[in-house]
Amino acid sequence: MKIGIDLGGTNTVVGICTDDGALLLKSSLPTPHGNADELCKIMRQLALEVCEKSHTVPADVLQIGIGAPGTFDKSACTLTFGTNLGMSNVCFAHAFAPDFTCPVYLDNDGNCAALGEYISGSGRGGDNMIMVTLGTGVGGGIILNGKLYTGFNHIAGEIGHMVIVYDGLPCNCGRKGCFETYCSATGLIRSADRALENHVDSILHQRKLENNGRLNAKIICDACDAGDTLAMELFHTYLQYLACGINNLINIFQPQKIVFGGGVAGYGEKLLAPLRELVQKELISAPCGQAELVKASLGNDAGIIGAAMLLE
Amino acid sequence: MKIGIDLGGTNTVVGICTDDGALLLKSSLPTPHGNADELCKIMRQLALEVCEKSHTVPADVLQIGIGAPGTFDKSACTLTFGTNLGMSNVCFAHAFAPDFTCPVYLDNDGNCAALGEYISGSGRGGDNMIMVTLGTGVGGGIILNGKLYTGFNHIAGEIGHMVIVYDGLPCNCGRKGCFETYCSATGLIRSADRALENHVDSILHQRKLENNGRLNAKIICDACDAGDTLAMELFHTYLQYLACGINNLINIFQPQKIVFGGGVAGYGEKLLAPLRELVQKELISAPCGQAELVKASLGNDAGIIGAAMLLE
Repeated sequence: MKIGIDLGGTNTVVGICTDDGALLLKSSLPTPHGNADELCKIMRQLALEVCEKSHTVPADVLQIGIGAPGTFDKSACTLTFGTNLGMSNVCFAHAFAPDFTCPVYLDNDGNCAALGEYISGSGRGGDNMIMVTLGTGVGGGIILNGKLYTGFNHIAGEIGHMVIVYDGLPCNCGRKGCFETYCSATGLIRSADRALENHVDSILHQRKLENNGRLNAKIICDACDAGDTLAMELFHTYLQYLACGINNLINIFQPQKIVFGGGVAGYGEKLLAPLRELVQKELISAPCGQAELVKASLGNDAGIIGAAMLLE
Repeated sequence: MKIGIDLGGTNTVVGICTDDGALLLKSSLPTPHGNADELCKIMRQLALEVCEKSHTVPADVLQIGIGAPGTFDKSACTLTFGTNLGMSNVCFAHAFAPDFTCPVYLDNDGNCAALGEYISGSGRGGDNMIMVTLGTGVGGGIILNGKLYTGFNHIAGEIGHMVIVYDGLPCNCGRKGCFETYCSATGLIRSADRALENHVDSILHQRKLENNGRLNAKIICDACDAGDTLAMELFHTYLQYLACGINNLINIFQPQKIVFGGGVAGYGEKLLAPLRELVQKELISAPCGQAELVKASLGNDAGIIGAAMLLE
């Protein structure tokens, strides 16, 4: 058995998996913001709980993996900076002792989600897979030759910060024209908010008002479904930028699969079917086979499974 | 001993290397354009020649590798399409029999050059390296975890066809705004030719006339050295696009080294020193260590050494 932990800004979810990555059950508690001692305590408590519920002896757990938003010193088993967790320099090496004596691994949540989809989700089949998360930002997780690729300093895979529009819109990272700026849910909403200033008669504007003046990716997608011309135009433009970034990743990596997660991927085939068409138009590798574009299938469980399956 | 062959559009160069990739000596003949039988004959002849010169018994050669511009069916040891060689569907599996009984490997010339620089050149040190060739196009070769990465269909690493300028200048590949369009020697020359239409009083224009009306990367670099304002402006713009693409590669791969080859890299530190400054400005990974930008050190020998050191 292997234990995977999705350490999020809101909840800490602990799951227990079979050795090959099937999630059996999970338990969760709110993450104690800024309190590392309390966090370690509840992680151990939840780990014991999932063991008990699955009739697993803690000594039989082969490894514990933690996925969190932040940066790590993996060799020291330490979260050096936990984005949205309010804590830094937290060592997890002995957080589960004395009950668990197995090794503890760490990685960022995006990488864990990619590994989870690769092992147990829609990323299965093939050695090379890119996970693209279209959420608040554009996250990435890269599986090459069957393993997570994280570069020499463990922070590779920042595909969201690949510039696709030279001198384009400013990004939080300091660059201009990043993939993330155009293709995150945030980017889609930003362009919609801007367009709505001159389209107060649109269905999209009406839906925004009904949602207390706040847009989200789902509202924009729903307005497309309702035939709103403005929403459809916005979504088409979004798809063109997305296809640009995806073709870049294909030309660089030639992965068998690209797996889409995050809020915008919730639109499913209505996103993927037109995206495939746009990608196909610019594909330079068609005669040699091409990447399959699929929706992630595990939702939030991907991060738990991936954490459980981390390698040293 | 291992034999590496750089099968180029002009010459076929055969070298013999030690098992760990030190090139001992090489011999070459003009490539017989469009004549596969003759090509196989001269490759075998040159292989025997380098064996004789290095006092190597052909039966002691562990492997023969061929790097060529084109596409391959590696499992069939076949060049499926040889760009600029005028031949296709040439099987090399038995081209060296009966003298040599070792396995024969194939890969494209860009990948072989990257592997050569990684094993014996300035790419040494570290597991992850990207080679960027700034020549007629922008070529790439990717070494990850100590091995060539070529994707599931063996055509990964087309970093030149990463769009950095959405809807930018048209590229031969069919896309618009590719890295190659802005950062190849060809791209630099194209932008200079265009600018010269309105700057007939520049040093650069004079140098172009002295070269029978034809620019090349060296002339542009030399004009920079001579203090020509136009050339310096053009080169600065070129560097900004180059830094953009290089930062993309860093954010995606976090390699220890990026090795620059090709004509423009001949400008050496005059290219690399300002490039490092521009890259540094947009680097999001500085606290975690960063890629070293270096010039390739093996010249044309990189392709021979890399071919000799190919893995199955």
